[in-house]
This record gives sequence, C-alpha cells and structure tokens, in this order.
Amino acid sequence: MEKPGEDRPTALDLGPQAELDAASSAYFDKCLEKLGFVPNVLRAYAFDAAKLKAFIDMVDNLMLADSGLTKLEREMIAVAVSAVNHCHYCLTAHGAAVRQRAGDPLMGELIAQNYRAANLPRRQKAMLDFAVKLTEAPDKIEEADREALRMAGFSDRDIWDIAAVAGFFNMSNRIAAATEMRPNADYHFLARDKQG
Amino acid sequence: MEKPGEDRPTALDLGPQAELDAASSAYFDKCLEKLGFVPNVLRAYAFDAAKLKAFIDMVDNLMLADSGLTKLEREMIAVAVSAVNHCHYCLTAHGAAVRQRAGDPLMGELIAQNYRAANLPRRQKAMLDFAVKLTEAPDKIEEADREALRMAGFSDRDIWDIAAVAGFFNMSNRIAAATEMRPNADYHFLARDKQG
Amino acid sequence: MEKPGEDRPTALDLGPQAELDAASSAYFDKCLEKLGFVPNVLRAYAFDAAKLKAFIDMVDNLMLADSGLTKLEREMIAVAVSAVNHCHYCLTAHGAAVRQRAGDPLMGELIAQNYRAANLPRRQKAMLDFAVKLTEAPDKIEEADREALRMAGFSDRDIWDIAAVAGFFNMSNRIAAATEMRPNADYHFLARDKQG
Amino acid sequence: MEKPGEDRPTALDLGPQAELDAASSAYFDKCLEKLGFVPNVLRAYAFDAAKLKAFIDMVDNLMLADSGLTKLEREMIAVAVSAVNHCHYCLTAHGAAVRQRAGDPLMGELIAQNYRAANLPRRQKAMLDFAVKLTEAPDKIEEADREALRMAGFSDRDIWDIAAVAGFFNMSNRIAAATEMRPNADYHFLARDKQG
Amino acid sequence: MEKPGEDRPTALDLGPQAELDAASSAYFDKCLEKLGFVPNVLRAYAFDAAKLKAFIDMVDNLMLADSGLTKLEREMIAVAVSAVNHCHYCLTAHGAAVRQRAGDPLMGELIAQNYRAANLPRRQKAMLDFAVKLTEAPDKIEEADREALRMAGFSDRDIWDIAAVAGFFNMSNRIAAATEMRPNADYHFLARDKQG
Amino acid sequence: MEKPGEDRPTALDLGPQAELDAASSAYFDKCLEKLGFVPNVLRAYAFDAAKLKAFIDMVDNLMLADSGLTKLEREMIAVAVSAVNHCHYCLTAHGAAVRQRAGDPLMGELIAQNYRAANLPRRQKAMLDFAVKLTEAPDKIEEADREALRMAGFSDRDIWDIAAVAGFFNMSNRIAAATEMRPNADYHFLARDKQG
Repeated sequence: MEKPGEDRPTALDLGPQAELDAASSAYFDKCLEKLGFVPNVLRAYAFDAAKLKAFIDMVDNLMLADSGLTKLEREMIAVAVSAVNHCHYCLTAHGAAVRQRAGDPLMGELIAQNYRAANLPRRQKAMLDFAVKLTEAPDKIEEADREALRMAGFSDRDIWDIAAVAGFFNMSNRIAAATEMRPNADYHFLARDKQG
Repeated sequence: MEKPGEDRPTALDLGPQAELDAASSAYFDKCLEKLGFVPNVLRAYAFDAAKLKAFIDMVDNLMLADSGLTKLEREMIAVAVSAVNHCHYCLTAHGAAVRQRAGDPLMGELIAQNYRAANLPRRQKAMLDFAVKLTEAPDKIEEADREALRMAGFSDRDIWDIAAVAGFFNMSNRIAAATEMRPNADYHFLARDKQG
Repeated sequence: MEKPGEDRPTALDLGPQAELDAASSAYFDKCLEKLGFVPNVLRAYAFDAAKLKAFIDMVDNLMLADSGLTKLEREMIAVAVSAVNHCHYCLTAHGAAVRQRAGDPLMGELIAQNYRAANLPRRQKAMLDFAVKLTEAPDKIEEADREALRMAGFSDRDIWDIAAVAGFFNMSNRIAAATEMRPNADYHFLARDKQG
Repeated sequence: MEKPGEDRPTALDLGPQAELDAASSAYFDKCLEKLGFVPNVLRAYAFDAAKLKAFIDMVDNLMLADSGLTKLEREMIAVAVSAVNHCHYCLTAHGAAVRQRAGDPLMGELIAQNYRAANLPRRQKAMLDFAVKLTEAPDKIEEADREALRMAGFSDRDIWDIAAVAGFFNMSNRIAAATEMRPNADYHFLARDKQG
Repeated sequence: MEKPGEDRPTALDLGPQAELDAASSAYFDKCLEKLGFVPNVLRAYAFDAAKLKAFIDMVDNLMLADSGLTKLEREMIAVAVSAVNHCHYCLTAHGAAVRQRAGDPLMGELIAQNYRAANLPRRQKAMLDFAVKLTEAPDKIEEADREALRMAGFSDRDIWDIAAVAGFFNMSNRIAAATEMRPNADYHFLARDKQG
Repeated sequence: MEKPGEDRPTALDLGPQAELDAASSAYFDKCLEKLGFVPNVLRAYAFDAAKLKAFIDMVDNLMLADSGLTKLEREMIAVAVSAVNHCHYCLTAHGAAVRQRAGDPLMGELIAQNYRAANLPRRQKAMLDFAVKLTEAPDKIEEADREALRMAGFSDRDIWDIAAVAGFFNMSNRIAAATEMRPNADYHFLARDKQG
C-alpha cells in the first residue's frame, strides 16, 4: 500500500498540505478506510483547504447524490470523457470505479478504449454519445441532441446531470493534464479479478 | 432591468427554484445589489440547493480568492477559453467582466474574438497560450508548457490557478452549451462606454 | 473620432497611400460622411489603387447589390464565417453592421459568439449551417447540402450568393489574420444602445 | 475541344449568360484564343455581368500584376491552398498552370499532392508553409509567422501578396465546392509532355 | 526511362539491396516487363528480403486476388485514402493505376482531388464514404456504417476487402511519408491520353 | 479459458474457417500452447488462407525479427498508435504484450492512456512522438522529424522499423474498427500482478 505524502501527486511544487477542516479530514479518513489510500487528486488539492473543500463538495454531489443516473452511469461518463481527452489520471481512477460498480473487470477497459465497441444498451449509448459530442464540440450541441436524450428515456433533470458530469471531467482532465497528476498505483489493481 | 424568474434560463425544464440556504440567498441578494440582476447561471443551478452551493463556492474561490493572478487575468482566461468553445453564455457574462475589470471597453471584445490580436504583455500572452492549448489539446501538455509559464514569471501555485480557471470554464462552457444557457441581456450593455 | 492615417492599419509596412482614382476617392469620402471614418481594410488596400478598386467593387457588389438575401442576412454570413475563423477585424466591423441592420444591439454578439444559440428562423439557420460547413470543411459539401438550402426556400441564385459571401469572408478573414489588420475603434461603439 | 455553353459549369441553375460588357467579352475572346476554351469559372460567373467583372479584375490583378512573387509562385500558392481544401476545380485548372509556368509536367502534381515532398528552395517552402497555415488555422497566425517570411527574403509587400493570393483561393475553393464547379476537361491534358 | 538503382527511393540510407529470393526476383522482372520499371516502393523494401516478400504477398493478394470488388474499385480506395493523407507516392502510383484500369485519363485525377466531385454510382460512393471515414475517424465506425455498405449491395466479405484495402493504404501512406518515398517519374505519364 | 470458434471474432459473417496450410496450423498451435488461445485477429483472417498467411508473415517479421528496436519498443509503438485511434482490439491485445514484455503491469496502461505521462527515456519519447505524429498527420512529416530520431540515437534502418510498425497498426486498427473485432477476454487478465 502507498503511504500518503510519500511522493508528490503532481509535477508542481505547491507547498505543504494545508491544515484541513474537520469535514475534509473525515473525508480523507473515509478514503483510507474504504480504498486503503487517499486519492492523489485530493492530496493535490490539499495545499489549500478552501479549494479542497469546494472540490470535494462538487464531486461528491455529482457522483453520489440522488440522480436519475445510476452511480455506474456517472462513472461511465467520467471514463468516456477522459478517453477523448486521453487523461491518464482519470482513466486510471475512474476506470477502476467502473470495474467495481459494474462488477465486471472488462467494462472499465471497454469504455476507456472506445465505448462504441461496448454494445451498450440504447440508453447508455445515447448518454455517452451526448457526453462525447459535448466534450469534442460543445459549440455544436443543438436542441436535436437534447431531444435524442429525451427519446432514450432521460428527463430534463437527467440531462442536467449528464451535462454536469461530462462538464466536470472536462475540467478535471485538464487540471490533471496541466499538472501531470499521477494516479495512485493501487487503482491499477482494483477489481481486476475474472469473477468481477 | 430583467426580473429573476421572468423566463427560463436554459432550454431545460428543471422545475421550480429550490428553497435556498441562507448563504445562497445572501449571494443572490448581493448580485441584485451589485449587478441589478441574478446571473442566469445561478438561476439555472437553483433547482437544487446543494448543487448551487457547490457551484458558488468553487467559482467564488477561483475568481476572487487570493492568487498570484489578478482578477482581470482570471477573467481573461475565462474569456479566452470560452472563445475556443464558442460559448455564448460565458463570452457575454465574462466579456462584460473583462471590460469592467480592465476599465477598457475594447479589451473584452479583443479576448473574445482572438487574444492573439491583443498584443498582450508577454506574461499574459504566455498565460493565455497555456490556457488555450489546455482547452484544445489537454493530452498534449508537457513539462515544456509548464516551463514556459515559469519563464514568464509564474510560480507553481500560479500554474495551478491558471489550470484551475481554464479547467473550470471548460466545464461551465459545456454545461451552458448542453442546456442552452441564456445570458442576462443586461450583460451586453455593461462597461461599453468609451471612457471605460 | 479616429483620423485616417494616424496609425498603420496592419502590422505590415506597405508604403504610402497610392494616388486614388476618382471612384475610390469618392468612396472614401462617402465612408467619412456616413461612418465618420474610413474603414481600416480600405486604408490597408490603399497602398495600391488597382487592388483597392478591385476589392471595393467586389465587396460592394456582394453586400449591397440586388439579391434574394437581405443585406442583414449577408452581414450575418460575414459574422458567422468570421466567428469560425476567430477574425478580430471582421467580427468587429461586421458585428457592428449586424447590430445596425438588425436594429438589435444583441444580434451581432449572438452571431459572433455562436449562431446556434440565436434561435434563428429556419431559413437563416439553414443559411448559416451551409456557410459554416463551407468554411470548416469545403471538401465535404455535397448535393444534399444544396438541397437543404432549396428546402429552406432559397433559389439557386440565392445559393450562389450565400457561397459568394461566405467565400469572400474566408478570403478577408485570412488577409486580416495574415496582416494583423486592426479594426477602427469606433466600430466597437456603434449601435450598442438598448433601443437598438 | 469543349464548346462553351455546351453544358452547365456548376450544379446550380443560374439562368442564361448575361450580356457581357466589352471588357469581359474581350477577356473571353482572349481565353478562347490562348487556351482554346473559356474557363468554366468565368462561364459560371457570367450569369451576372457585374459579378463577372469584379471577379476578373481581382484575379487578373492578383495573378498577373507586378509583384515580388513570380507568376509561378502565385500559381504554386493557388495549388497548395487548393490541396488543403481538396478543390477539384482549382487543382485541375491551377495544377495545369503550374505545369505550364514551371515548364515541368511533374511540379503541378507535386504541389497538388503534398508540397512538403517537393524539396522546394527555402524561399518557396517558407511561402507555402505560410499559405497553408493561413488556410488551415488563420486564427493562429502571429508575428513570428510574418517574421519567418521576412527571414526567407520576402518584403512586407510580398507578404501582402502571399496573403492575398492564399486568401483568394480560400474564397474560390469554397465557391467551387458550394456550386460543384466542374473544370474544363482540356485542363487535364495541358503541359503533360515529358519535355515540359 | 528511369533505371532501377539510379537514385535512392527514399530519404533513408538503408544500405544495399538484399539478395532477393527467386519469387521476388521474378516479381521485379515482371514489373520491368509490364511497366518498364520497378516501382520504388519495392526498391525501398528490397534492403531486406523477408520484409519485401511479406509486402509483395500482402499487396498482391489485396489488389489482385478474387474479390467482390473490381480491381478498379480497389485502386479507387487506394487513391481516395491517399488523398486524405496527402501521400505523394501513392497518389502518383495508384492515380496512374486508376487512369489505366478505368480507361479514363480523368478518373484518377478526380478521385485524387475529391471523390465527392466524381458523381460516382451509389455503390462506389458508399464504398469511398466508408473508406474515407475509416481513414479519418476509425474510432467512430459503427454498425450503421457497415449497414450502409450492405444496403449499397456489398456482402460481408466485400466489407472485409474494403476495410483491408483502406487499412493497407493507411499503412503504406505512412511508410511513404515517414521515409519520403519518391514515386518513379514514369507514373506521371501513364495513361494520360485523351482516348484513355 | 475461451474456446476457439465459440463465437464470431468480428461483426462480419465471413463464412467458415478455410483449410489452413501447415505453417498457419502450426502457428495456431503455437498460440494455443503459449497463450492458451488463438488471438481473434488470426481467427478473423482465417476465412481465407492466403490472407491469413500474408498477415502472419508481415506481423511476425515486424514484431519479432531482428531490429534496432527492442520487442518491447515495438509493442509500445503498437499501443501508442492504437491509443490515438481508440482501437479496442489492439489496445487490449498489445496492452497485454507491453505489460508482459516490460515486466510492469502499469506500463501498458500508461502507454494506452497517454504516453506523454509515462516519463519515458528520451529515446522512447522521441520514438513515440514520431509514431504519433505519423499517425495523426502523416502529410506533415518532414526531414526535421527524421533528424530528431537520428539525434535520439536511431539509425536509418531503425527509422524504417518505427515507420513500418506505426504504419502497420494504422492498418490493423482500421481493420479492427471496420469489422468490430473483439479481443479475446483472456488478454485482460494477462500480466496484471503487482509483481509484474
């Protein structure tokens, strides 16, 4: 197991970890307990307690709050967007999450490599088509694109969530790329067993 | 002046405004007082109090907290990124912010149209070159790109802030595009006077 | 008001203004009378009387001669094409023209930022879709694209005019970019009033 | 030999040829005498005498007037730009012109296929590098690009001419694509002999 | 006529020609007899007998073995793919092959410049649309693309052959580009006569 | 373990496996012995014995014959090219090969996600920069690109091999995409152990 603080999580020298507030400390503890490590993206943000807190609040709400999208679907969007952007950090961390949530060691690879090869159900295919177009050519989204999501069974609130998750990883991918953020090595080994 | 709630801020039907917590209500009041209106992006998020709060916390920290970047520089990044993504909402709202903060009614237009035509000082040119490359081809950022920022006088913490602001508007641009977010008309008229 | 000759209209040193023929001189006078200044694109061309005359003859015919397209529609094409090419000069000069001809201070901004956000009537949406595809991927235009214009009510002569205006601004945008052509500052302040 | 008027020069039905003024008639006669045919681009424009005249005046000035660029160099720009845009009409017509002016039946092919394979002298390589960047990404031209032309021996007036010719064919390529303009078949057979 | 060995077929110094096995020697002889020269791509590979043999075996099977595609159709794919990749070598060599096999001196040019301008029968248009999409965006091929080929009359084995030929020239184009492979000059003069 | 023939290796119905010649049969047996399965790409080609043999001969020579590139380096090129093309089949099969040959369960992931994040030695970074440029923009390769490889220690014969391997996977990626080739599931589980 990797020890937090052992090496720098990015190519930037951002100074020491800030004194964390109680909520962030508890969040770090929960990560250690559940994953065995603190994700490097959190360690990277930890040079500034306010930035860390804002990041945790947003990502937690997006990925875990009530939504018409399942948690697996939100992780699939994360990975499909990160594949377009070739983001090493997010493909590693969220690829593991897809493997875990899908209970399928191949699904994360499939989405990370090319979701079009995954023979997804129509609903998830439409969801990722939208997320990928939004990533590649946001200026070309039109009402017809939203209408295609509605035809696939999504409500307008679901469309907001698809947009918000796809948007968020277009942010995270870029912060990771700009700073050369390095994923915790442990992610590579999660949920790789054939039994899922 | 536009009245909040008069018309929907996006193409989505997201239901009524949630009951806002005290902090968000105060934030809306401050907008009304300072701008004369509540920015539509906040009205759009207001269907869900937790999402609204997370958004306000992040954007406020990014654009207003202490940083090696001036507030004008952060708005310039917002506009240069939004120009690449052809984001109607952000070009309108943050174009106005650049005009205001620069005290120059032409500067917002210049950055929104093509920052390369603005004959910017080397520091700001390097900053926007990085932000635009990060927007167009995040997978191609390398150590040489960070080094170019350091050579232009930026610290590693400044690089984080450039990345974080550029990343954030890559998120916001996409949420605005996905939902057809409409800027408040008042933005168009702000800070247009020749005297600045 | 800016005085002609006060500063160079491009980054190139093209020598002094040529002796203009009577028609071009009259044209410059008309600009001064109607706009209060000579557009910098004309000042840029004025180093060579024959080039200036050929440019004026073409642009005048394209934008003002009888056509199935209104003058506003031709300006909208100019701005939509210039938005793809991020042309500072043409977005400024023709953005002002759209504001003026539309009697709407927001319309120029909308087209300059992203015409897809403007909720245009079907006819104008089809016209700009064609002009933008012709700008981005001229090799991919096929009979189906012309047929879409005919279905939106355009005649074959109208299609010629759409092509000719879109083509022309693909030329002008590039000459402006190659020479760093600077728009007259006055354009920024034209037709900005709320009343239109 | 092809007879003028035998078949339509584009996919558009633009009506009958207009009554040409004396200058345009003389120009058509000169083409017939020198080439044995009237180029279809002129036949296409001939539905409107004013548009035809403006086109002839501009193209004639660009390609034949005094310039620091040789006539062959201007044709090379025409072909290199048309190669980027995959323009059937201009590659055929101006490919023939390069073969003729170069006295080299292979040169036209080389530029039409990929000028980088032509082992051109530094001056012409720099000229086409600029013209092609201006075609592909006009918004990314910067002072360094102009400076590279100056280092290769071009004056500022030469830079104007490079820009003007490259710009013009970005217009012509698009008008040809939009209208499916068909080159006269005779162009294919011009200047194909091994002796040049 | 060009003499084999007179000059290097690429920009690389790959050493002397290997001792060829009997099959490759016979193949070279057949080229000399039929074409009057050994294609430079074979001369380039000849530094290594095993690589040369593998290349000949594959290209010969692809272009000449029994197939639901005619030999002309396979050459058309070669040229359409090479046009996307702007490959000087393959456009020259296979452009000549299209002229010869089509018995039409213009057809090679048309496909090399822009196959969309060729008014091809539906079958061949569908075939080249697939080959070009596969070249430009292989990751975006979906079942609908295969289905379009089936609707145009192609069997699944034909689809394999379209893919294999398009794939092969995406390889060859890149080897030619990487090594600056130079086509034999004689190709330029083949099948240029008006009579075809 | 997967049984050969259990399910179709592509989306195409290519008929039954052809009668294999002795060499191909032996090759299949060797795969079964070493890997425990016959790679689906071979099963896909097996509908035609001649095509299968030509494919095996070429890929075997490229990946296993003597070369200035190590076998690992050739697999790294395969994966970096396949990452650009988002090829599910090749990323899976050759990602496993990189993990095995590198004795490093993370290396395959790194190259498949973004080789720029791998902090490779200068030699391998230069090699993959060339392979990726050749994949993305083959028409833009120039002598300077070859020179960069020479400066990083590669001979002209090594450059041929880099080009040939990169070219080959641009072919394979496209055949896999065109046919929806499915990797054997076993690849996912190879060489995943932390110990390498």
